[in-house]
Amino acid sequence: MIKIAIDCMGGDVGLPVTIPASITFAKRYKDTSLLLVGLESEIKFFLNKINNVPFDRINIVPADEVVTMSDSIEVALRKKKKSSMHIAVQSVKNGFADACISSGNTAAWMAISKYFLKTLEGIERPAISTSIPNQNGNATTILDLGANVDCSANNLLQFAVMGTALVQSIDFNNNPSVGLLNIGEELIKGNIIVKSAFDLLSSSNLNFYGNVEGDDIFKGTVDIVVCDGFVGNIVLKSVEGLAKMFSMTLKEEFKKDLLSSFVGVLAMPVIHSLRNRLDNRRYNGASLLGLNGIVFKSHGSADIVSFDFALSRARDAVINNLLDRISIKVHEINRELRIKN
Amino acid sequence: MIKIAIDCMGGDVGLPVTIPASITFAKRYKDTSLLLVGLESEIKFFLNKINNVPFDRINIVPADEVVTMSDSIEVALRKKKKSSMHIAVQSVKNGFADACISSGNTAAWMAISKYFLKTLEGIERPAISTSIPNQNGNATTILDLGANVDCSANNLLQFAVMGTALVQSIDFNNNPSVGLLNIGEELIKGNIIVKSAFDLLSSSNLNFYGNVEGDDIFKGTVDIVVCDGFVGNIVLKSVEGLAKMFSMTLKEEFKKDLLSSFVGVLAMPVIHSLRNRLDNRRYNGASLLGLNGIVFKSHGSADIVSFDFALSRARDAVINNLLDRISIKVHEINRELRIKN
Repeated sequence: MIKIAIDCMGGDVGLPVTIPASITFAKRYKDTSLLLVGLESEIKFFLNKINNVPFDRINIVPADEVVTMSDSIEVALRKKKKSSMHIAVQSVKNGFADACISSGNTAAWMAISKYFLKTLEGIERPAISTSIPNQNGNATTILDLGANVDCSANNLLQFAVMGTALVQSIDFNNNPSVGLLNIGEELIKGNIIVKSAFDLLSSSNLNFYGNVEGDDIFKGTVDIVVCDGFVGNIVLKSVEGLAKMFSMTLKEEFKKDLLSSFVGVLAMPVIHSLRNRLDNRRYNGASLLGLNGIVFKSHGSADIVSFDFALSRARDAVINNLLDRISIKVHEINRELRIKN
Repeated sequence: MIKIAIDCMGGDVGLPVTIPASITFAKRYKDTSLLLVGLESEIKFFLNKINNVPFDRINIVPADEVVTMSDSIEVALRKKKKSSMHIAVQSVKNGFADACISSGNTAAWMAISKYFLKTLEGIERPAISTSIPNQNGNATTILDLGANVDCSANNLLQFAVMGTALVQSIDFNNNPSVGLLNIGEELIKGNIIVKSAFDLLSSSNLNFYGNVEGDDIFKGTVDIVVCDGFVGNIVLKSVEGLAKMFSMTLKEEFKKDLLSSFVGVLAMPVIHSLRNRLDNRRYNGASLLGLNGIVFKSHGSADIVSFDFALSRARDAVINNLLDRISIKVHEINRELRIKN
């Protein structure tokens, strides 16, 4: 039986999303049991609204506190020790769960996870990774997205290792290609750290493609794009900003006048299909990689469908031994580096 | 009379774009004369196709060579000394023109411009700047876009100065706001250089808003976004990649089947208007800032309309004394810094 601990309190909406999504998920996967962590009365209230809850695989784990989006890392980590985040992570630490997930405060979730689980042997720093739909109809996995602002070349190499293990585990791609995010050939190529990461990646046994540019994320040139957390976070926020502007402008244009509105109604199926293809929700579930435990992070704005997706990704990571894959690969890479130096 | 030197040979298409655009532009602005720099016979060939060329304000300046997109900086700068790029920049250097523009190889154009014109007194490094449409219906000016990979805090301050002078000159906004591109509050805030740039900007007399995130570029939170060239280039390429994917997917969805095609025809005016609002072409014309001369760079894929836009921006920069504005402001800022230290 696979066991997943869910922080039910996180996200913009909280329980009205996490509880129905969890039950839908539990009904689909009979080999999986869930630990619903949060304020007991509230969890029960929302469970009562759902028919045919598989109670044999649903366990309520009470928590007294909730980490909010505005809590500092300090408050979340030190002052709210009975929070649903703490208890969800501790259940992984203590072996009661194989993975945990939250859609709450990212920095707090990372800090609590790191505090209890520590990093895997050989990993210097954990990273945050997510997948972005590309024009091949697949998704490009990108990391780091903000856990590490200043990275060494070796950090970038380790991100490539962790990204490879992740894509092997949840996208069922055995030999994913890795690109190093850099700037155009026409300009001065990359900074010193990126140049030396290029050398490390080239001499590793990863499927290293070489440098890629920003637009390659959407072209789907490689399966995994590696960058430091400063660049990764800014790129992610920028493309989210542009996507939001597109969608808003599209809506406005189709409501501009009566004729446009009429065409808008006719175009609904096309727009719906367009939205589906470009929708990030299909790939909801960022991974906190490099920890000694499987930890996922759902987008705060996730709805029931996308929270369910994130749960599936966590389950896939468990089934496909994400942690062992990272450990074995990083051990190999570190040994190679030691031999060379 | 304002004089602009045009490298007619650059861009994906070259003369069939640059010549008609130049003549349209010259007909509109009777106070402006143009130096058309390039292979003489080819320029004449394309001029012959156009009626009513105002020859009193059009001068052909012959060049023997053309810098290609694949030429290295070394080749462009040292081996092709009779190229249209060299001659266009030299005409600014020698006072025959007030500004120059090319849609060719960016790195070569920057290198040649920097070689002949040098940087303005007080400016440590030139930068590349462009404008991106935002959801306010305006554009956000962003710099640097790749001229400087590793930047100091003082470089970022100077980019803010140059961006301010640019927006004052070509967007007719007297007190533009400046944001420093950084990562979310929820994560570790920025790297050391960005933190110290924040302090410099805060104590300057620029209209400094504070930190902004990637999505603020599209929200239009500030008029100018400042970042190092590594981040700026990757962000620009990433959003271009997403925009391309969006436009491709929209086209595909409207051609998927007969019904969709039919709706697509009806939706044409809406899609057209959508494209117009999101179109980068309206803001074509990147500026190479910080040089002792006004230098513009058109997108390589510019069509006649957008090359014409870029020419207008160069003209506005001349009329509104872009160089003086930068010089005065940077002098003020540098004096303030000396007083403090």
